Amino acid sequence: MSLASLQATVERDQAAIDLVVARLAERFADRFSTSDAMREQHGHTTTWLPNQWPDGVVFVRSTEEVAEIVKLCAEHGVAIVPFGTGSSLEGHVNAPAGGISIDLSQMNEVLEVHPEDLDCRVQAGVTRKQINEYLRDTGLFFPIDPGADASLGGMAATRASGTNAVRYGTMKDAVLGLTAVMANGEIIRTGGRAKKSSAGYDLTRLLIGSEGTLGIITELTLRLYGIPEAIAGGVCAFPDLEAACSAVILTIQCGIPVARIELLDTQQVKACNAYSKLGLAESPTLFVEFHGTDASVREQSELFGSIARECGGGEFSWATKPEERSRLWAARHDAYWAALGLRPGAKGVSTDVCVPISRLAECIGETYRDIEEMGLIAPIVGHVGDGNFHVLVLVDVDSQDEIAKAEEFVERLNWRALDMEGTCTGEHGVGQGKMKYLVREHGAGLDVMRTIKRALDPHGILNPGKIVRLD
Amino acid sequence: MSLASLQATVERDQAAIDLVVARLAERFADRFSTSDAMREQHGHTTTWLPNQWPDGVVFVRSTEEVAEIVKLCAEHGVAIVPFGTGSSLEGHVNAPAGGISIDLSQMNEVLEVHPEDLDCRVQAGVTRKQINEYLRDTGLFFPIDPGADASLGGMAATRASGTNAVRYGTMKDAVLGLTAVMANGEIIRTGGRAKKSSAGYDLTRLLIGSEGTLGIITELTLRLYGIPEAIAGGVCAFPDLEAACSAVILTIQCGIPVARIELLDTQQVKACNAYSKLGLAESPTLFVEFHGTDASVREQSELFGSIARECGGGEFSWATKPEERSRLWAARHDAYWAALGLRPGAKGVSTDVCVPISRLAECIGETYRDIEEMGLIAPIVGHVGDGNFHVLVLVDVDSQDEIAKAEEFVERLNWRALDMEGTCTGEHGVGQGKMKYLVREHGAGLDVMRTIKRALDPHGILNPGKIVRLD
Repeated sequence: MSLASLQATVERDQAAIDLVVARLAERFADRFSTSDAMREQHGHTTTWLPNQWPDGVVFVRSTEEVAEIVKLCAEHGVAIVPFGTGSSLEGHVNAPAGGISIDLSQMNEVLEVHPEDLDCRVQAGVTRKQINEYLRDTGLFFPIDPGADASLGGMAATRASGTNAVRYGTMKDAVLGLTAVMANGEIIRTGGRAKKSSAGYDLTRLLIGSEGTLGIITELTLRLYGIPEAIAGGVCAFPDLEAACSAVILTIQCGIPVARIELLDTQQVKACNAYSKLGLAESPTLFVEFHGTDASVREQSELFGSIARECGGGEFSWATKPEERSRLWAARHDAYWAALGLRPGAKGVSTDVCVPISRLAECIGETYRDIEEMGLIAPIVGHVGDGNFHVLVLVDVDSQDEIAKAEEFVERLNWRALDMEGTCTGEHGVGQGKMKYLVREHGAGLDVMRTIKRALDPHGILNPGKIVRLD
Repeated sequence: MSLASLQATVERDQAAIDLVVARLAERFADRFSTSDAMREQHGHTTTWLPNQWPDGVVFVRSTEEVAEIVKLCAEHGVAIVPFGTGSSLEGHVNAPAGGISIDLSQMNEVLEVHPEDLDCRVQAGVTRKQINEYLRDTGLFFPIDPGADASLGGMAATRASGTNAVRYGTMKDAVLGLTAVMANGEIIRTGGRAKKSSAGYDLTRLLIGSEGTLGIITELTLRLYGIPEAIAGGVCAFPDLEAACSAVILTIQCGIPVARIELLDTQQVKACNAYSKLGLAESPTLFVEFHGTDASVREQSELFGSIARECGGGEFSWATKPEERSRLWAARHDAYWAALGLRPGAKGVSTDVCVPISRLAECIGETYRDIEEMGLIAPIVGHVGDGNFHVLVLVDVDSQDEIAKAEEFVERLNWRALDMEGTCTGEHGVGQGKMKYLVREHGAGLDVMRTIKRALDPHGILNPGKIVRLD
C-alpha cells in the first residue's frame, strides 16, 4: 500500500502545524518533542504499512491537558493521533496528515478501586499488567489479555480482547464507563459505576472500538473479577484441524465455562517446541484453561477430556500446579517470538479475522491451501472459542514481491472470512490496514459510520485516515 | 407531567399527516387502521403519563415495508413510533406529535437457528417466550427475561434485561447484530454472526437502547445458550435489608456464577404469600437460582448457603425439582399482580434505578423512609446482583394529589440513585418519563447524544419526544 494512497484523504496545512508545534513547545516544554527519533517511534507500525510521522509528540498528564491540546488543534485544523503503547497492529498510530501525537503513557494512575463493586477507575495510560499488579492484594483481577502489555485506553479504543475473551468478553464488556475528550475539546463522562443502564445512547460502546477517531479516551471505569479459587489447564493434540474445531464447538455447546481455549497449528507447535523447549506432539493442539472452584475445575477438565477423546484427540493431561500452567501459557504468549524463529531475519506481520465457529475449520483449511500454494511461512494461532484466529506472515519487508504476495494473501483471507459471515477483524481493529474491507462488511452501515464521524468530528482532526474516509 | 410539556418539542403538521394516512390506507388496506381503539391502544402508557395517540397504525410484515413507510413519512415530515407489544414502562410508544405507529408484531418469524454457533436470527416482532418455545427441541435457550412477554425488537430498543442479567447480561450482550431502517429509509445490517469484531463503530450497541429514535430495528441476530444440565434454586430470608445485600455482595465477590438473585422486600413477600399461597417468612428475602452441572449447582447452592448463614440469613433450602422451582419463580413473576392486591383498584406504576451494589442497601433504605413519610404503598423488588431495583407505586390515578406525590417520590428516588453514582434507569429506559434526569446523569454527554440524533435523524421523525430534545 503506497504512502500516497494513505494520505489521499487527509489534508495537511504546514503553517497551521508549525503554529501549533510552537505553542505546544512553549506550553509543555520538555513534555513536548519534535525529535526525529520520538516522531518515528510514535508513527511506527507493526506491519508493512509505511511509517508516517507526526510533527510533534506531547506527553500529557491529565484529561484537562488533553482537552487543552484538542482545542488548540481544533482551532487550527491540525490532526491529532492518540498514542498508548504503540502495540496496535493495523497502523492505528500512523500520522498520514502529520499533526500531534498525544502520548497518554504518563497518565498511568489507578484512581479508585472498589472491591465491593468489583470495579476500578484508571487513567488511560495504565497498562493491563500494571492494573493486575496493582490489584494483586485485593484478590481481584482484570481479565482482558491481548498479549501485548497494551494501555487500557488503547485496548478500549481498538476493542481489544485476547485469550480470555471466550469467558470474560472483550473490552466492550469490560468497560463500564469512560472519560473522553471530544473533537471540540469538550470532556464527557459516559456510563458510570452501575452494572447496567438503559439511560440513553450507549456512548461508552460507541467510543470503544472507534480508534481515537470520535474522541480521545482519558479514563476508564473497568469491571473486575475475583481471582478464581482454582485454575486448571492443559494441552490436547488432535489428528487434524477439523477434530480440534469439533472439540471446541462441543465444549462451548455443552456450556463448559472454559476460560481460554487456544488453537496452535502444527507449524506453531513446532516453533513453540523449539523456542520454549516443550515436547508437544506436532499436530493441531488446543491449550485450555478452566477457572472456578477446585471441584468445578476438576469437573470441567474431565468433561473437556471426554469431549476431546470423542473427537479423536490425544490424551488430555491437565495441571493445576501454577508452575506447570505458567510454562504452557508462557509458551503460548511467546508464540510470536517462537514463530519468528521459523524464518530468522523476517518480520512477523500479524493479521486476524473472526468467523462463526461452525466455519472455523473450513476457513483455516482454505487459508492453509493459500499458504502452501503461495509458498508462505505463516503459522496460525487462534482464540478458537470465539472463532477468531491470527496468521503471522513472516515477510522479508525489503522485498516488494514478498510484501505484494503477503498483501494478496491477507486480502484473500479477509474476503474469505466475509464470505463465511465473519468479520475482517475480530480484535486487531481497522486502523489503516482493514479500511478497504469495511465497504463489503457493513454496506450502508458504513454511511452511518461516516455520518457519525462527520457529526462528532466535523473537521476530521481526530486520528484522520482511520476507519472511515470522509471524502 | 402535562401533555403540553411533552408536546412542546415536537411539531405536528396535520395536512402532511392526513396525506400520509391516506397513502398508507390505500397501500396497506386492512393492515392499516385509524380506529380510535387501535390508536388508543398503540399510544397507551403503563404509567401516569397521558395517552397520546398516533394518527394511524400500520401492521408491517417485512423490513422493506418499514423502509417504504419511513421514506413516505420522511418525505412529509411525519412522526413514526415503532411498536412491539406495548409493554414498555416510560411512555416509549406515546405519540406526542401524532403520526404513524409501526406495529411490528406480525414480523414474528424465526428466520434461522444455528445450533453449532449458538445463534439465531429473528424478526423484531418475535417475543421472548416465542423464541424459547421455538428453541425447546434444540436444547438451547435465549436468557434475557424482562418479565413481560415483550418483543425482541422492543427489548433491544430499550436495552432490556431482567432476572437473568446477573449471569447472562442484558440485551446489549445478547444481540450480535441487527437489521434496522434508518430515518432516510435506508436499510442497514450491523454486526454479524462472528462472536466478536473490531471492525468499526459499534452500530449494534448504538441502536440498542436508542428506543426507536435513531432507527427502527426489524431483525436481530441473537446469542443463544445451552439449557443447563441442572438448575437449582431456593429462597432465603434475612433479618434486614443490609444483611440481604451483604449476602449478594459476597456471592458476587466469591465468583459464584449465580443465574438469578432477586430481592423481595417484606411488603412484597407479604403480597406474594397472599397471592401465590406461599408460606414465606415475612422479612427481606432473596430468591436465587443456579445453572450448571449437577455437581456445580450443588456446590454453588452450598456456598451460597454458607454465605447466607454468615450474613445472618435463615435456613437456605434449595430445590432442583422443576415443580418446586417453578412455583417459586411463578410467584416472583407474579409479584406485580400480587402487589396490586395490596391496594385493590390502584394502578401499579413501576419505576427502576440502578446503583453500585455497595450502595444498594443505603439506597433502598432511604427509599423506604420516603415511602413511609409520604404514606405510599410501594413494594420493592430488585435484580440485586446488578444493583438494580424496582419500586411499584400503587396510585389512584384519578387523584392529582396522589400522582403529584408519586411523581415527587420518583423524582427523589432518581436524584438519590444519581447521587450514589448510579443511573436513573437500569432497564426500563428513558422514554418520556426519565428524560429530565439525563442532564444530570450525562452532562456534556447529552450534547453528544443530541448531535448523534441530529445527524442520523435530521428532521426528528423517529419517535420524537423521547430520550433527547432537539430544541
